[in-house]
Amino acid sequence: MSLLVVGSIAFDTIHTPHGSAERVLGGSASYFSVVASHFTTPRLVGVVGNDFPQANIDLFLSRGIDVKGLARVEGSTFFWEGEYHRDMNTRTTKAINLGVFEHFQPVLPEEFRDSRLVFLANSAPETQARVLDQVSSPELVVADTMDFWINHQKDSLLRLLPRLDGLMLNDSEAMLLTGETNLVRAGHAVRKLGPKFVILKKGEHGAMLFSDDGVFVVPAFPTEAVIDPTGAGDSFAGGIMACLAADSDHKPGRLRRAMAYGTVVASLTVEGFGLDRLRTTTRQEIDHRLEQYRQMLAF
Amino acid sequence: MSLLVVGSIAFDTIHTPHGSAERVLGGSASYFSVVASHFTTPRLVGVVGNDFPQANIDLFLSRGIDVKGLARVEGSTFFWEGEYHRDMNTRTTKAINLGVFEHFQPVLPEEFRDSRLVFLANSAPETQARVLDQVSSPELVVADTMDFWINHQKDSLLRLLPRLDGLMLNDSEAMLLTGETNLVRAGHAVRKLGPKFVILKKGEHGAMLFSDDGVFVVPAFPTEAVIDPTGAGDSFAGGIMACLAADSDHKPGRLRRAMAYGTVVASLTVEGFGLDRLRTTTRQEIDHRLEQYRQMLAF
Repeated sequence: MSLLVVGSIAFDTIHTPHGSAERVLGGSASYFSVVASHFTTPRLVGVVGNDFPQANIDLFLSRGIDVKGLARVEGSTFFWEGEYHRDMNTRTTKAINLGVFEHFQPVLPEEFRDSRLVFLANSAPETQARVLDQVSSPELVVADTMDFWINHQKDSLLRLLPRLDGLMLNDSEAMLLTGETNLVRAGHAVRKLGPKFVILKKGEHGAMLFSDDGVFVVPAFPTEAVIDPTGAGDSFAGGIMACLAADSDHKPGRLRRAMAYGTVVASLTVEGFGLDRLRTTTRQEIDHRLEQYRQMLAF
Repeated sequence: MSLLVVGSIAFDTIHTPHGSAERVLGGSASYFSVVASHFTTPRLVGVVGNDFPQANIDLFLSRGIDVKGLARVEGSTFFWEGEYHRDMNTRTTKAINLGVFEHFQPVLPEEFRDSRLVFLANSAPETQARVLDQVSSPELVVADTMDFWINHQKDSLLRLLPRLDGLMLNDSEAMLLTGETNLVRAGHAVRKLGPKFVILKKGEHGAMLFSDDGVFVVPAFPTEAVIDPTGAGDSFAGGIMACLAADSDHKPGRLRRAMAYGTVVASLTVEGFGLDRLRTTTRQEIDHRLEQYRQMLAF
């Protein structure tokens, strides 16, 4: 099934205790679509400035990503610079320049409007809603959000939520949105705001799914080679959505399987700087790690 | 198989956002042995003061706990008063009086010296070592420890570790002990200090097992009714050890199954103040929740 992602494309400068990477390709839509390209042919909608090198577009093309929705406009590409602390779980933003992403109003190419699965990566809820307006008959719509929108555009977000099948957000954001201090209660409370299912991301501690089937918990795949956590959440989303797009079997448990794939690809992402590890991994390696993961959870 | 626990018996005064409980029965050995009593007949070694009511001893007896090793001496029973913060994950100690526990040197009753499974609940590593000296031929010895001993009696702790089959400690304590900032590396590094397996406790995020079989991750059982987290770690330990004591099957995966049981009983513990929930639960309820947990992890 066709899979659309609308999100950011960025240059990231990343500092970690293990070293640095300068102006590497990043952004939610980049991570999402490179992950998804291991399962399906994702449709990418985003914006870059005229400083964006052809080599990056070639990378998308080499992964079979449909870049018809990639707009190139006058100005600079979204830039982010951040430094991870020693524990690799917290980071400080050193510089940010939204560039052409700041006023980006995504317009879907005609060919993308029939997309069946839609992922609205983190951006203003009103922008996410306007993207959704352009999709004719989506089967499954999932959005990501963050504390900034909860704090500053909560009304818009609350209007968006009933239009979603799924919402992904961090544990602390779910508590912020609902006022609940217990994660399980927070997850249920977010569902009451509209989305059919809710995925709470807990970083290195994994994630939780709240749906009609109840609560499902997934620990993170434990990796000791955490080089750069950037993009883990977007990779997780990419793995989930791409797995759903590739899986026409609507049996119960479909979302759970997808989350296991998301977990596994996110663990690969953090094992290299930027997209390094994702670009070189293979579907075979992903499937192998999924099997390791399954055994790791069995008792 | 016989199961011995040596640890603290205390009065706890607990304040949470949900209410308070005054001088309820607590302490590591109490939680451990009440949990274990649902699986086996644990042998309890601990000390109480002459303020300890017979009703508490009757509770132990009613659960089939062997209290031959319960010493009653002149003085006051270990007392702890703590307040949980709004998130229920952090707490502040308001008052502590070690009482008769401070200078307790456990002496095992003759009948306990043949114990096959031994759990050394958190106490000074030298005290733990002296208990171990009194056990004739243990099959499996597991100890708990904490940051205080790592900071103040590290040499004694390092001497104890090679004598252990298993060590349980919190994630932050494993990092403190090894200097590693990645949990997976920390777990492996603790094993290199001597114990055959290591269980890293991550509170509401579950636990990880490091052994010859590799790494095994267990998320916590998600409960929305967190009333009082006191004793969750000791209940987890009690569930693990009691399950091992009741399980004579030495197939691989024995420890994993035990950890799943430990996870489930810990989730019951936090659903009531003190030992309230553990006293009234049944083996049937525990097994039912284990089955829910298994389904929750399946994909």
